[in-house]
Amino acid sequence: MIHTRLTERFGLEMPIMLAPMALAGGGELAAACAAAGAFGLVGGGYGELDWTRREWEVAARRLANKAAAQRVGCGFITWKLDQDASALDWVLDQPLLPKAVFLSFGDPRPYAERIRAAGARLICQVQFLEQVPQAVEAGAEIIVAQGGAAGGHGAAAATARSTMVFVPETADWLAAHAPDVLLLGAGGIADGRGLAALLMLGADGVLLGSRLWATCEGLAPPAAKELAARTTGDGTARSPIFDVLRRKDWPAEYDFRAMRNALYREWEGREAELRADPDSARAAFDAAVAAGDFTGANVTVGEATGLIRDIPAAGEVLRRIADEAEARLGGAGALINP
Amino acid sequence: MIHTRLTERFGLEMPIMLAPMALAGGGELAAACAAAGAFGLVGGGYGELDWTRREWEVAARRLANKAAAQRVGCGFITWKLDQDASALDWVLDQPLLPKAVFLSFGDPRPYAERIRAAGARLICQVQFLEQVPQAVEAGAEIIVAQGGAAGGHGAAAATARSTMVFVPETADWLAAHAPDVLLLGAGGIADGRGLAALLMLGADGVLLGSRLWATCEGLAPPAAKELAARTTGDGTARSPIFDVLRRKDWPAEYDFRAMRNALYREWEGREAELRADPDSARAAFDAAVAAGDFTGANVTVGEATGLIRDIPAAGEVLRRIADEAEARLGGAGALINP
Repeated sequence: MIHTRLTERFGLEMPIMLAPMALAGGGELAAACAAAGAFGLVGGGYGELDWTRREWEVAARRLANKAAAQRVGCGFITWKLDQDASALDWVLDQPLLPKAVFLSFGDPRPYAERIRAAGARLICQVQFLEQVPQAVEAGAEIIVAQGGAAGGHGAAAATARSTMVFVPETADWLAAHAPDVLLLGAGGIADGRGLAALLMLGADGVLLGSRLWATCEGLAPPAAKELAARTTGDGTARSPIFDVLRRKDWPAEYDFRAMRNALYREWEGREAELRADPDSARAAFDAAVAAGDFTGANVTVGEATGLIRDIPAAGEVLRRIADEAEARLGGAGALINP
Repeated sequence: MIHTRLTERFGLEMPIMLAPMALAGGGELAAACAAAGAFGLVGGGYGELDWTRREWEVAARRLANKAAAQRVGCGFITWKLDQDASALDWVLDQPLLPKAVFLSFGDPRPYAERIRAAGARLICQVQFLEQVPQAVEAGAEIIVAQGGAAGGHGAAAATARSTMVFVPETADWLAAHAPDVLLLGAGGIADGRGLAALLMLGADGVLLGSRLWATCEGLAPPAAKELAARTTGDGTARSPIFDVLRRKDWPAEYDFRAMRNALYREWEGREAELRADPDSARAAFDAAVAAGDFTGANVTVGEATGLIRDIPAAGEVLRRIADEAEARLGGAGALINP
């Protein structure tokens, strides 16, 4: 078993957390990850109360009277909480208390006291080094440094950080200023090689999105998952295109990685034109979503799609990753030739 | 000493190659890297014969009658060779033969036979998985998988691959199709943590650009290097802006990472406007270059600038990286708690 500060402080059997994926990562997936010894986060996302309630209750049923109930939490998009925090309030008042609340994309400080008072721990995801001090000030016990390879929302393409640099740079900052705060890396990790690499970079563990999205328990349509299993890492891209098509009003410093499908390619490099006159493109998008047609509908997966070649159960994925990372780390010493 | 297929086949004392950096990585830097036990590549870049000749002759003088002369080569931008290959022809005809020629950004196949016939080995850098088969067909002995964190040219921001995914995905492709071809990772590696991580991901070694750019032997102006040592990884970005300002006619699939300085920020998000009417911006850029003013002139460094905090000699940098990687790899087994 791989042993880090994360496994120790959060009672995990592997240094892995499920990324809270809005609409795609629900109660079944979070519970399966918790049962396998990782930490499961329900993707509260945009803070829609009905969705969060339904999925949290699924997790609560699956984890009733189990030790794994200690390994589950819920995530939210911070700037959406600024508009409506009712889903956060609701989940903090449940019999199954989230053991952690995960916030990303905005200032976490206004929510920190409420989360702490309820007895939950705070995890803050950041996209830039300059956001780390604010997360530490909010009392985050874990900082997640998210690189641009991640699927879905993240820093806009031109300025996005890469996991490879962002993690060790954040590790250095935390070592100097907040050495008790844990660090996870996110973006582009999908197998045991990635987990072993992140531990070498100085992380205490990893956040997994795409790899756990592409499991039996993920809520994405089966056809989307099957597409992901056949697509190389060349096949995704970051831009605001799908946010415009989906009428999502994201701040300009963030954009969206998804599969670069036919509708995406039609608007690539023409984002200003799309924003100025989005109606016909939105109609094409809506029709594709209604038809389950992924030449138009978004398949929200990260660059790690290139490392995803099957759709197993989440527990099987997690065991493979932990075993492969353990084998890599165990063999690392053999690279040194005295 | 870290022992990989790269160190074995290229007679190196550490699994590290210097990235061939056009105009910034000359003979002094390549010779210093070779002397330290890494592989040094002169940055032939745009294929200007005068520059290549001068810098190659510096390397030849420094390495005369030394074993390290076996660890030096030269790099070129492939699409520029399509216009003028005289610098490649010249270097392949020298008494100090380049032990390897490094090609990036274009189809390497037209140059492969000439390079092989001269007795040099071929290294091909790729930005997308779909470019790997062509490089293997050309007879590359090493594939360099370059992620978007790299400084200078690379894949355009929206579609750039990340080192974290691109390396293991390319490792899998090579294992299945060309298992004797070596794999290096590039983009975002600047310390021993990065080297250890790349070995965990399945690379045989790393290509280092920015970290060796920021050394005594690098040809960039001292003020540019000092700026890099003070800048975090948040401070660079990828876009075509500096190529437009420098009148460089790069193919649309590539753009350029550099420090996000005041002139850059002025044109950020307005690239179409800049292309349509570049004259006044180019005048401002030219004036800044003439004045050594880096609020306008480009500082061509990668995201790894966030891990660069001093400007030592190249040999010192390389020893630190090798020692730190060795310590990390040697300690990896301790993460496993039976």
